[in-house]
Amino acid sequence: MSTRHDGRTPDQSRPLSITRGFTGAAPGSVLVKAGRTTVLCTASVATDLPPWMKGQGKGWVTAEYNMLPGSTAPRKQRDRLKVDGRTTEIQRLIGRSLRAVVDLVALGERQITVDCDVLEADGGTRTASITAGWVALVDAVKWINAQTPLATSPLIDSIAAVSVGMVDGRAVLDLDYHEDSAAEVDMNVVLTGAGRFVELQGSGEEATFGDDDLAALLALAKTGAAQSRLAQKQALGVDWPF
Amino acid sequence: MSTRHDGRTPDQSRPLSITRGFTGAAPGSVLVKAGRTTVLCTASVATDLPPWMKGQGKGWVTAEYNMLPGSTAPRKQRDRLKVDGRTTEIQRLIGRSLRAVVDLVALGERQITVDCDVLEADGGTRTASITAGWVALVDAVKWINAQTPLATSPLIDSIAAVSVGMVDGRAVLDLDYHEDSAAEVDMNVVLTGAGRFVELQGSGEEATFGDDDLAALLALAKTGAAQSRLAQKQALGVDWPF
Amino acid sequence: MSTRHDGRTPDQSRPLSITRGFTGAAPGSVLVKAGRTTVLCTASVATDLPPWMKGQGKGWVTAEYNMLPGSTAPRKQRDRLKVDGRTTEIQRLIGRSLRAVVDLVALGERQITVDCDVLEADGGTRTASITAGWVALVDAVKWINAQTPLATSPLIDSIAAVSVGMVDGRAVLDLDYHEDSAAEVDMNVVLTGAGRFVELQGSGEEATFGDDDLAALLALAKTGAAQSRLAQKQALGVDWPF
Amino acid sequence: MSTRHDGRTPDQSRPLSITRGFTGAAPGSVLVKAGRTTVLCTASVATDLPPWMKGQGKGWVTAEYNMLPGSTAPRKQRDRLKVDGRTTEIQRLIGRSLRAVVDLVALGERQITVDCDVLEADGGTRTASITAGWVALVDAVKWINAQTPLATSPLIDSIAAVSVGMVDGRAVLDLDYHEDSAAEVDMNVVLTGAGRFVELQGSGEEATFGDDDLAALLALAKTGAAQSRLAQKQALGVDWPF
Amino acid sequence: MSTRHDGRTPDQSRPLSITRGFTGAAPGSVLVKAGRTTVLCTASVATDLPPWMKGQGKGWVTAEYNMLPGSTAPRKQRDRLKVDGRTTEIQRLIGRSLRAVVDLVALGERQITVDCDVLEADGGTRTASITAGWVALVDAVKWINAQTPLATSPLIDSIAAVSVGMVDGRAVLDLDYHEDSAAEVDMNVVLTGAGRFVELQGSGEEATFGDDDLAALLALAKTGAAQSRLAQKQALGVDWPF
Amino acid sequence: MSTRHDGRTPDQSRPLSITRGFTGAAPGSVLVKAGRTTVLCTASVATDLPPWMKGQGKGWVTAEYNMLPGSTAPRKQRDRLKVDGRTTEIQRLIGRSLRAVVDLVALGERQITVDCDVLEADGGTRTASITAGWVALVDAVKWINAQTPLATSPLIDSIAAVSVGMVDGRAVLDLDYHEDSAAEVDMNVVLTGAGRFVELQGSGEEATFGDDDLAALLALAKTGAAQSRLAQKQALGVDWPF
Repeated sequence: MSTRHDGRTPDQSRPLSITRGFTGAAPGSVLVKAGRTTVLCTASVATDLPPWMKGQGKGWVTAEYNMLPGSTAPRKQRDRLKVDGRTTEIQRLIGRSLRAVVDLVALGERQITVDCDVLEADGGTRTASITAGWVALVDAVKWINAQTPLATSPLIDSIAAVSVGMVDGRAVLDLDYHEDSAAEVDMNVVLTGAGRFVELQGSGEEATFGDDDLAALLALAKTGAAQSRLAQKQALGVDWPF
Repeated sequence: MSTRHDGRTPDQSRPLSITRGFTGAAPGSVLVKAGRTTVLCTASVATDLPPWMKGQGKGWVTAEYNMLPGSTAPRKQRDRLKVDGRTTEIQRLIGRSLRAVVDLVALGERQITVDCDVLEADGGTRTASITAGWVALVDAVKWINAQTPLATSPLIDSIAAVSVGMVDGRAVLDLDYHEDSAAEVDMNVVLTGAGRFVELQGSGEEATFGDDDLAALLALAKTGAAQSRLAQKQALGVDWPF
Repeated sequence: MSTRHDGRTPDQSRPLSITRGFTGAAPGSVLVKAGRTTVLCTASVATDLPPWMKGQGKGWVTAEYNMLPGSTAPRKQRDRLKVDGRTTEIQRLIGRSLRAVVDLVALGERQITVDCDVLEADGGTRTASITAGWVALVDAVKWINAQTPLATSPLIDSIAAVSVGMVDGRAVLDLDYHEDSAAEVDMNVVLTGAGRFVELQGSGEEATFGDDDLAALLALAKTGAAQSRLAQKQALGVDWPF
Repeated sequence: MSTRHDGRTPDQSRPLSITRGFTGAAPGSVLVKAGRTTVLCTASVATDLPPWMKGQGKGWVTAEYNMLPGSTAPRKQRDRLKVDGRTTEIQRLIGRSLRAVVDLVALGERQITVDCDVLEADGGTRTASITAGWVALVDAVKWINAQTPLATSPLIDSIAAVSVGMVDGRAVLDLDYHEDSAAEVDMNVVLTGAGRFVELQGSGEEATFGDDDLAALLALAKTGAAQSRLAQKQALGVDWPF
Repeated sequence: MSTRHDGRTPDQSRPLSITRGFTGAAPGSVLVKAGRTTVLCTASVATDLPPWMKGQGKGWVTAEYNMLPGSTAPRKQRDRLKVDGRTTEIQRLIGRSLRAVVDLVALGERQITVDCDVLEADGGTRTASITAGWVALVDAVKWINAQTPLATSPLIDSIAAVSVGMVDGRAVLDLDYHEDSAAEVDMNVVLTGAGRFVELQGSGEEATFGDDDLAALLALAKTGAAQSRLAQKQALGVDWPF
Repeated sequence: MSTRHDGRTPDQSRPLSITRGFTGAAPGSVLVKAGRTTVLCTASVATDLPPWMKGQGKGWVTAEYNMLPGSTAPRKQRDRLKVDGRTTEIQRLIGRSLRAVVDLVALGERQITVDCDVLEADGGTRTASITAGWVALVDAVKWINAQTPLATSPLIDSIAAVSVGMVDGRAVLDLDYHEDSAAEVDMNVVLTGAGRFVELQGSGEEATFGDDDLAALLALAKTGAAQSRLAQKQALGVDWPF
């Protein structure tokens, strides 16, 4: 099996490091590095729910995603007057993914906001955000529990996200920016610790894909998600919630 | 096999009608009705490409999606100061889907904009928009060709989109609003006439899904896409481009 | 008397067709066609009044006007970041006209919003909107009454709007886009069934007009309004409220 | 004939004073006072035409209208994120009125912008803006001519604007804020020095008006316009352009 | 000591005139002229505090600053979609300066808004705004007291603002636009009647300044502030509050 | 001399650490920590100057400042629809300060943008941004020179910024958030390596200050700036440009 432009085999992820407590203001603050992709995920807790959530005896988890201007070359302009479509899609994906493994009733009337700010972007920022955002979420829940013990843990399962794609007709795992630009098919998969799907988003980029391609991509995704879950476990150590 | 709230079987689509030439200003103008979902798709042609596309000897296809205020009860406010996230996601999906089956070089330096304005919304507006938007695109290409004959047809294949989902633990085809609100898993699939995937977007709504669920959903999607393709063929008649 | 570019005499309106119940989500849904001008007017009912209207024991009627992008060639960009001045003027005109024939106290603490979305534009979109918007309003009032019988009808009189103008020095009725572009004077008149003025808006377009021109234009307007009122009566049949 | 709340007869305007050269940066700078309504109209000249006007061998006249926050009690918020509908309507009216009496070809490729900033508002701000804005325009044309003599004067005629209305069933001239709030019918009329109409905008405020009302209002408007024209003549003295 | 481009000595201010009661709608309305700089400062009073100030038993003073389009040549575009950075800085400076000499508890739960609208700009608009804004504030307090006598005066001291700068290596007082454009150092100083600093904002413009420059500039500032205070006293006469 | 709430003496700064090369996409990338304040400053280089700078044979240096949502507790909302006034003031200050020590002609037609993104905020974020932003600027200049050797260095001098203030009637150096909230006077001072002033911004917070206070604050500022300069020198090592 021939290697990729950076020497990886098709089923090999980039080295993934997860650092908790990177800053001190937010209850969860996780710096994740996947190769040259660096994201800071902070999880903040508020008792001020959005109006449409109030008084229902349950909480909410939401996410925001943003790339710092210096995270790319050339510099990316800040989203000021409007948030671009890609940003909107990504932050909705992160929020939905996290909510899929949170028991909102057990969380109580609180909102956790996971902010994913990309410090350096080299492909896979959304999947790194989900994988590290979940760790920040665990720390935020730990912080809530330290203040007001919760009767039941709101954490149902872990989640990890991976990107897979067809590059030069071959299925590969964890695309960097170079590969992503050339991919015929681009797919992001969010999987629970139990191996179930939370999100599955595959797009042909001026291309299409068949049933066999799909099968190959999903197999790779499961391999990658297992690796990411290991990194989450190492980072959390005794704080692993299950 | 027990029926659904509106009497359909799980693998049954709503009646789909496609009317071409509904209005006269735009080259393509298609009114689609899928049950109580009604969308007007117009395809306009311009020689004014977006700046980043100019001078590359190829064209572009883009889409905009919008719900009229009276399309829902209670009335939906117009997207004025900002376009909401759902709208952004949908119009990016429609544009990407259409581009997957267009040869942009054969199109030449032109932009086709497909506007999907929802007149009445009862679930499945994005899939109806793609299925009918493709018909409007065919009419726009026909209009271009009548003005300036094209050497090669830019139309590579047809596309049709369907929604499938898990409702009460059962996979069903073509969800209406009532089912969509209660669905555990919601999946939109865009397929070519040749049966290949263009887009695959599945989300658990505070839920997850397994490999078997995925298989069941994809099988239903293929059934539905074949039915939609038939309706496209009937609407286009001798103008069917392949 | 010589004819116009489309064969009409100066005092002849374009054929006017009014279809009720075009879509099903909003209580009033009226599709109007005046020649090649097509507008969908929906009337929605809410009990949520604007803040400055609350607690006064009366209701409100407002309107929004919008042209779909595919309603013109070349395609019209959506009003997203700001609503253009013409749109603002037109929707204020429609709302004010409708309110002139509604007893807001009899309506009770409800807001009716009449949305006028132009599907195809060939001149006279604002007058078609008023004429059909009033029919949608009647259907909305009928819907309210079916739910909660009203002690007194809030409908005071019918209204119909017509455009007149000076083209090539001659007063003409119901200008299409071709005539409108060349008109020296452009006037929109809103008249009640009883023949009284609700709105009178005449503008010289880099031109002026005298007392005799004004008299000729007003006479034509009365002719046109009577014809529009007939079309309203036919559309409403036994639901004609007076 | 009984008097009004401020002692005027129905056909009496408020005292009108017009001061030229109020500030020094703009070529035209006119302070107008009509009773307690005070407006500063400045006319600026630029050679930078709007894109759609360039290269046509003619110029453009446009207007902006704005109320200072301290012009009313309670204080009016600044139009920052959006310009309200009333403001838009008024500035379009002022611009259209001024253009009706300017020969845009004789003006050459220049843009004159007339800014009407209301310092104190007591009714009739739009008509005061037009009457004084025309004087500022004359001064701007004079300034252009001093720099680059024009072959032909672009000034075709003078214009003056007046408000009339039905208050307590009686037609009155030049309504102040107190009367305007209570008026059943509100009409703004822009007339040329030659007595021809430029604009005629009459609205029933939850009311309607008949042919006789219209005749009475137009008669009053002509009286008022003649008085305003006199004030313009006195202000311009030897600079009166005809 | 050689004179400046307009004949002034380095330590000479431009003639300063302050006119109270320029318009009638707002409780305070002061027109200030400093050479060819003209600003209208109005002070409005509201009992509607910003949300974060409510229920604290004290009031608030805030300011807005705006340049009219005709105040400069070439014409300045209105701040519509966004307020520029310079405007924001200036209005924050004015508000902070005024609050430094107001006892917010003695003011009670009221908000005074001082609007500074520049009619003509020739340098020093922010300092003229502060000096005249304080006079408008005094008039607003007088108006409040006439309606509801206050137990204690909220006015602690007077303030006056001056601009100083280094031009051609020399410290000068009260720069006009010509000097301001060429200044190496630009400094605005706000001083109380008691001679204490409220604000001190000095910036090198692609330049720096030393301790001796600073000392010279501060000495000039004190001279200028004393002159401005005299003009305030003359304008207020018997209404001088101390 | 009694100590402060965190044990520092009045003239003691918090520990300052400066890390270069924190991320890899931008030519300059500096992470600064001053106590619990953490800022990432990246310096990006573009040859695309703002329109008003083009063709003048010189470059430009600008700055943007932003606080990440998780940098404070409670979480700070992102500046999306508008940038708040404080942000605007700070980024203008940073840009002006950096330009004061750059020879824009020697820089050539390039723009350097220094982005200061606050990861954790505990007071002094603007001064940390200037101090570290200058180091990022040095790295960007080094990067330019490696690509296209510059004839003359555009770096004129170093700058460092410090905050000083009056807290409980005593002048203190380098206020943290706790002290800043309680300060009567707040002053930011930007000084060159040569000890000259670039910026001096002092404000009384509902308070004022005298000449003696000013003298005490400026003395502390010079002490602090010398310490910051030492940290810059250590971080740059052999890359120190003078």
